[in-house]
Amino acid sequence: MSEKFYAVIMAGGKGERFWPLSSSKTPKQVLPLISDRPMIAMTVDYIKDLIPPERILIITNASLVDVTKEAVPELPTENVIGEPVGRDTAAACALGAALVKARCPDGAFCILTADHAISDLEIFRKTINEGLAYALENDVLMTIGIKPTFPSTGFGYIEAGEKKEHNGTVEFRKAMRFVEKPDNLTAKEYLDAGNFLWNSGMFMWSVQALQKAFESFQPEIADMAKQIEAVAWTKEFSSVLREEYSKLGKISIDYAVMEKADNIVVAEGGFSWSDIGTWPSLAEHYEADANGNVVVGSGEHLESTDNIVVSKDRLTALIGVNNLVVVQSEHATLICPKDKAQDIKAMVQQLHARGIYENLL
Amino acid sequence: MSEKFYAVIMAGGKGERFWPLSSSKTPKQVLPLISDRPMIAMTVDYIKDLIPPERILIITNASLVDVTKEAVPELPTENVIGEPVGRDTAAACALGAALVKARCPDGAFCILTADHAISDLEIFRKTINEGLAYALENDVLMTIGIKPTFPSTGFGYIEAGEKKEHNGTVEFRKAMRFVEKPDNLTAKEYLDAGNFLWNSGMFMWSVQALQKAFESFQPEIADMAKQIEAVAWTKEFSSVLREEYSKLGKISIDYAVMEKADNIVVAEGGFSWSDIGTWPSLAEHYEADANGNVVVGSGEHLESTDNIVVSKDRLTALIGVNNLVVVQSEHATLICPKDKAQDIKAMVQQLHARGIYENLL
Repeated sequence: MSEKFYAVIMAGGKGERFWPLSSSKTPKQVLPLISDRPMIAMTVDYIKDLIPPERILIITNASLVDVTKEAVPELPTENVIGEPVGRDTAAACALGAALVKARCPDGAFCILTADHAISDLEIFRKTINEGLAYALENDVLMTIGIKPTFPSTGFGYIEAGEKKEHNGTVEFRKAMRFVEKPDNLTAKEYLDAGNFLWNSGMFMWSVQALQKAFESFQPEIADMAKQIEAVAWTKEFSSVLREEYSKLGKISIDYAVMEKADNIVVAEGGFSWSDIGTWPSLAEHYEADANGNVVVGSGEHLESTDNIVVSKDRLTALIGVNNLVVVQSEHATLICPKDKAQDIKAMVQQLHARGIYENLL
Repeated sequence: MSEKFYAVIMAGGKGERFWPLSSSKTPKQVLPLISDRPMIAMTVDYIKDLIPPERILIITNASLVDVTKEAVPELPTENVIGEPVGRDTAAACALGAALVKARCPDGAFCILTADHAISDLEIFRKTINEGLAYALENDVLMTIGIKPTFPSTGFGYIEAGEKKEHNGTVEFRKAMRFVEKPDNLTAKEYLDAGNFLWNSGMFMWSVQALQKAFESFQPEIADMAKQIEAVAWTKEFSSVLREEYSKLGKISIDYAVMEKADNIVVAEGGFSWSDIGTWPSLAEHYEADANGNVVVGSGEHLESTDNIVVSKDRLTALIGVNNLVVVQSEHATLICPKDKAQDIKAMVQQLHARGIYENLL
């Protein structure tokens, strides 16, 4: 364990696909979706035996800073950083680099998100530990790829090339290319090929290597990071951040840096990983009954199969329905087929447009 | 309008098919299902311009007397009668006859139920008025048949025979036979034949003619009625009723009397009538939106058609679902396809069996 290692958790989204449980007051990361701990607290739990809370930063939306602090009281409150506006992941990574560099100029950090369910935590921490060490010793940007277990069309992929020798047990390979979410056929080809990994959205790098990459490919972001570094952890930080962010466009770290740089190394994550992006992905973390129904809370069913019911404060009774998602919050109920769970975002937009449901959103 | 005319409303069921809105504390008849008035109050409204509240009796289950009284404060409280146990409709009709006879020995009464939605009320009251007058003048038992509008398999039918002359405009015919709920093919034959009417479960008769019929076909019930008549409207009534009812078996008025007697006359109900037996039958009384969705309360939908949403105290949001019934009560949510709405009764049984939901039932 090195004192040069930091973790930056990106927790900016509202998680609208988890409406009606998620809302502006209760964003996804503060919800106890897959255990009785908020998602953001679980993420801190995953890493804190390797990187202690003092060196864990959370970057979220400014409006979510207070609820996020409440969800992870073990973190120093100043470690929860609010972005005045969302500028996608490239800006957030650069912001994280500036904040870490101001504390530890020769430090390294991993990027985690609050959306992931991870088990096999020993392997997870070993991956981060070896990755950060390798990133510090070599002039590379590391990403974590997950060995696909099925031909998912919901993730981007990384094509892995030649193996990198290093002093450790985690497999590191040169990343040949990043590819967008594939269609069904292509996803099957990737699975068969064997050297394609899911792009987990987790990264490891030294602050210096990342800074150099931004200077090469995104000079405006590099400039922003320099301005931020100068005022990091001071009273001027917020106003400079607001000023600098207002100049930036939105761009993802994959598109801004990872797809352009030629010094990308992918670490094969040998731990169990899943992205908690929709209600069906969450349901996989609960045991289904003999009829395939997952019930979180109070549910009864008759001639009903393969449903997901989240109903903590009331009874949900199903008769003769299949493959539905039913989610109950205090004041609203959502019902949709599992394969429409992506459309919950559109429903939230519709409710915003109605103008009378703001207290539920 | 004759002072000899009474109305007896049978309102004994719990209406389990309307769970979760209906419950032991809020049985169907006290729910404002198709307007902002409880079903039982609407029934009183239908008839009260012809028969005033003082001559309207309600027979319900003893456990439902208090909520029923609250739902129809315009009725003298003694006019709401509680049966200690349910003994089906024959016993209830005999009980009604005994109570009416004790007040008016040469009276007549109609049997109504709290399950019906009736419009064209002028025609309805004319049917009752002419029917009661005819029943008083002739030694007949009258029933009301409804001209079928579709080949329903959900109602029993009455085959109508020769026309009866009388001083009025409602068509009276000899009832040839009563038939049980038919299958699809038979229902279509009945519709084509033209002389089959839906058995509405509404009756009109003089207390004397009904008494005579019970004496002929159901001497035990006739005996019960005599005992009741002797103590009607006195303090002894309840204990005698309990004693007498305990001796009886369950039998319907159709089976006990109507299918056996040869002096049955059917009045053709020219008013608009529907039986509110399930959520889909109720939805016909609300306007559907362009997508066929009926929303009572607060509902939003996306790519969803032909659903019924009853959601007065919370928001129900539907995405990509069709032909569902969704009903919200304070503490429970029911979801089932329209064509499974009959099975709500089985769900209520299942919930009783669980033993932990009694406060919701």
